[in-house]
Amino acid sequence: MNTNTVKAYGTESKEADLKEINIERREVLANDIEIDILFCGVCHSDLHTARNDWGGTKYPSVPGHEIVGKITKIGSEVSKFKVGDLAAVGCMVDSCRECENCKRDLEQYCTNGMVGTYNGNDKNLGGHTFGGYSEKVVVDENYVLRVPENLDLAAVAPLLCAGITTYSPLKHWNVNENSKVAVVGLGGLGHMAIKLAKGLGAHVSLFSRSPEKTQDALDLGADQVIISTNEEEMKAVQGKFDLIIDTVPYEHELNEYVNTLDIDGTIVLQGFIGELNKMISTVPIVLGRRSISGSLIGGIAETQEMLDFCGEKNIVSDIEMINMENINEAYERMLKSDVKYRFVIDMKSLKN
Amino acid sequence: MNTNTVKAYGTESKEADLKEINIERREVLANDIEIDILFCGVCHSDLHTARNDWGGTKYPSVPGHEIVGKITKIGSEVSKFKVGDLAAVGCMVDSCRECENCKRDLEQYCTNGMVGTYNGNDKNLGGHTFGGYSEKVVVDENYVLRVPENLDLAAVAPLLCAGITTYSPLKHWNVNENSKVAVVGLGGLGHMAIKLAKGLGAHVSLFSRSPEKTQDALDLGADQVIISTNEEEMKAVQGKFDLIIDTVPYEHELNEYVNTLDIDGTIVLQGFIGELNKMISTVPIVLGRRSISGSLIGGIAETQEMLDFCGEKNIVSDIEMINMENINEAYERMLKSDVKYRFVIDMKSLKN
Repeated sequence: MNTNTVKAYGTESKEADLKEINIERREVLANDIEIDILFCGVCHSDLHTARNDWGGTKYPSVPGHEIVGKITKIGSEVSKFKVGDLAAVGCMVDSCRECENCKRDLEQYCTNGMVGTYNGNDKNLGGHTFGGYSEKVVVDENYVLRVPENLDLAAVAPLLCAGITTYSPLKHWNVNENSKVAVVGLGGLGHMAIKLAKGLGAHVSLFSRSPEKTQDALDLGADQVIISTNEEEMKAVQGKFDLIIDTVPYEHELNEYVNTLDIDGTIVLQGFIGELNKMISTVPIVLGRRSISGSLIGGIAETQEMLDFCGEKNIVSDIEMINMENINEAYERMLKSDVKYRFVIDMKSLKN
Repeated sequence: MNTNTVKAYGTESKEADLKEINIERREVLANDIEIDILFCGVCHSDLHTARNDWGGTKYPSVPGHEIVGKITKIGSEVSKFKVGDLAAVGCMVDSCRECENCKRDLEQYCTNGMVGTYNGNDKNLGGHTFGGYSEKVVVDENYVLRVPENLDLAAVAPLLCAGITTYSPLKHWNVNENSKVAVVGLGGLGHMAIKLAKGLGAHVSLFSRSPEKTQDALDLGADQVIISTNEEEMKAVQGKFDLIIDTVPYEHELNEYVNTLDIDGTIVLQGFIGELNKMISTVPIVLGRRSISGSLIGGIAETQEMLDFCGEKNIVSDIEMINMENINEAYERMLKSDVKYRFVIDMKSLKN
């Protein structure tokens, strides 16, 4: 298969910093689109994969799955896009397309395993896939999204992961203008959850341990901030919420949040991956028919729906732009939650 | 307030056996019904309350909340029943009737606290309520159920707790002829879950650790028994079920069951009340948008719906009849799961 060499930023081992490397991208096949990457968001998963925090990282690792850019080439059978269009790629570049979940537009739950934008099994070149910290990417058009023209393109990038990850459960649990939604954690996911829930018309609260985040949350559109260490404030919201989006990535007490759910309410875990050791009691679950659930990004059709919704409602991420060579420093700042609220790489800095 | 003395079976302390005592029942008020109790089912909650396993037991304690009998007296304003009718009482004898949950026919989740059939706060006489291990009970007609005439009355009694407790989540999660339901645990709740899910048309599986329960489960109507200690059998049902009714009352591993849920599937915890210490990982929850939920008995309207459904489908509990004086021995056998599947007290034995 014909390939083209492109510049990328990646790492050879979990201890090493990311640095400039060369990778191969396949020449477009009949259904492929080649995208010149303009901006790439920086997700916590990028850092976890680069450093093999979850195990299973294949090296060299090139992270990045919040990709926006311009189409530079299309295959002979491509029907949905043309050269010069804006385009975006999120967390998946392929899936089996045959299982029941793929057929239900739930490719993220592909029973044969979706192909991650990075660290996935590359069906065409063998080896593993490389992400968006690179000059160009080649993706089957069925896994490419259209981008609304009216939005700030750099600030659109995080919608491809942080956006869809929070949009999908909001839609799945039918959030609308009658809903009371709460968000736990104000980071990349949390700030998008507030904006999107607000965009859907819900009453939106943020749970926070830090009073100093109050103004930030209100500025993002939250109607209310509840300081979760304040007993009075917590008591005032017992049984109140229909849906809680919990974005906290480390082990934390859940019972106090479960108690603020209304009957039939659900808390959706999106940040923490691991054992719920001592985190949950069944008491408020059984006594209130409440649910603990989770959700993984969103399907391709739903991702497109989310982008269109953001275009219509003028919703983008709040970002801090960095150059490619500052990625290692950005990772360190992310570990300290020192970003409002998402780093986005200006890919010009890799190309020069 | 006028009262009548009736014979009951109760205990004065957590260490003491149950024995015959006298209790007072109020004379019927305008909306009250007096029921001559013919049969009373024996629920695990009876035992836990008598022995103060959950704390908070008020003594003397008279358990029993699976009550069926015949109406012997009605108040002046009673409109739904007449003397001589069959009637039933379940886990509640009152609630605030004003909160949003009461108004939604979800009295079991009354935000001001429903009045339990026993160990509740007696609004009329003060003190606490006494359950169905007694000759008669007086209950507001709004908390009394009609009993289908075509069913074996003794075997109807367990429907009032074990029946509605499993029926309610089956209905709430929309179980129908396209559903794949699994049940964990084959006791009082589990055997009703199988019968009711089957009655609703679902494909029903039982998870069991004991191969010797296979024939019993098939006899109850299960389509399939999965031996949960058999890796092959568990692997064959990965991602298969829409709803799992988990009736196991002690701490147990949940992840293996969560993995057998389809996308959007829910496991409903009905047996275990306590901390989910080390029982759950979020991995299959997030990767499959699965939910862990719970459910508490059912509302009055839903309990009536369940009884009518059982009348129509000819569903009753499998019971072993005992006399009142054998209740202490029955408790010991329940602790060893030595009952198929519910003890029911023939209340004649208390009256003679």
